[in-house]
Amino acid sequence: MKARDLCAAFPTVRLTTPAIDAARLLASADLPGLIVVDDDGRPLTILAGTEVLRMAVPGYVLEDPALAGVVDEAAADVFLRALDERAVAECLPREHRELPVVGADATVLEIAALMARTHSPVVAVVNPAEGMLGAITLDALMDRLVVGRGEGGETRSGESEDPR
Amino acid sequence: MKARDLCAAFPTVRLTTPAIDAARLLASADLPGLIVVDDDGRPLTILAGTEVLRMAVPGYVLEDPALAGVVDEAAADVFLRALDERAVAECLPREHRELPVVGADATVLEIAALMARTHSPVVAVVNPAEGMLGAITLDALMDRLVVGRGEGGETRSGESEDPR
Repeated sequence: MKARDLCAAFPTVRLTTPAIDAARLLASADLPGLIVVDDDGRPLTILAGTEVLRMAVPGYVLEDPALAGVVDEAAADVFLRALDERAVAECLPREHRELPVVGADATVLEIAALMARTHSPVVAVVNPAEGMLGAITLDALMDRLVVGRGEGGETRSGESEDPR
Repeated sequence: MKARDLCAAFPTVRLTTPAIDAARLLASADLPGLIVVDDDGRPLTILAGTEVLRMAVPGYVLEDPALAGVVDEAAADVFLRALDERAVAECLPREHRELPVVGADATVLEIAALMARTHSPVVAVVNPAEGMLGAITLDALMDRLVVGRGEGGETRSGESEDPR
């Protein structure tokens, strides 16, 4: 069981992707964040879902949450308007978060150690020749470690796209 | 749309819950973590999935990931053995992470602001009279803000247990 066997397709965005598209991707999938890639498809960092939220919540509400009650009914509109014309680059913290990366041959325990050390629930799997193969989520790893102990090959159906 | 309408049942553990049970809960649900409650069911903190992993990865691997390759085949066994006889309390960081809490009447924007400020993808919903009603995940909030704009009342079927 190596990284290549555990990894699955994972949505990516670029620094120039509209923030609203990132929000839609996050909403449509149950993910802790999105992987930000450069123009060559190499992973740069991870965009946490809470960072998109921070961009979407008006500054006056972040500073004084009591004001949030006033604008309740139009929350979705307030949110979407705030994301309009912003890009992913503006959502990211100034210091980019480290996105852990492993090679296709990394073992389950190596991946677990990396996630534990970096506190990241996502690890990108990269192959020098092919670029990013996909990513491994904490959930997929836990499934393998706790539930799928046997080598019976029960893969997470519906998610894996056999990235190689 | 208030916190009570968005919140759904969320798995909880206690400080004395066996770590292996926490790992199984995390593996069975696609969650960023588990809410740790006290003996009265009041939320104390959140146990991140990566913290359970950290407890499960042998210390020598955390210190020198290169050693992970040696024990690959038995990863699940190594993992489960490490969790054996540990409790949730031992997995938690010394400084408990703040678990954001809102009342049942909090607005969508208040919840969004709280998640954004605390970088927490989970907010517990508490009612003084009834204790913890459930929790709101970033994913549920994003669904509401980006997808479920209308007041058509499309709830996330299969998750909500109508906590009141």
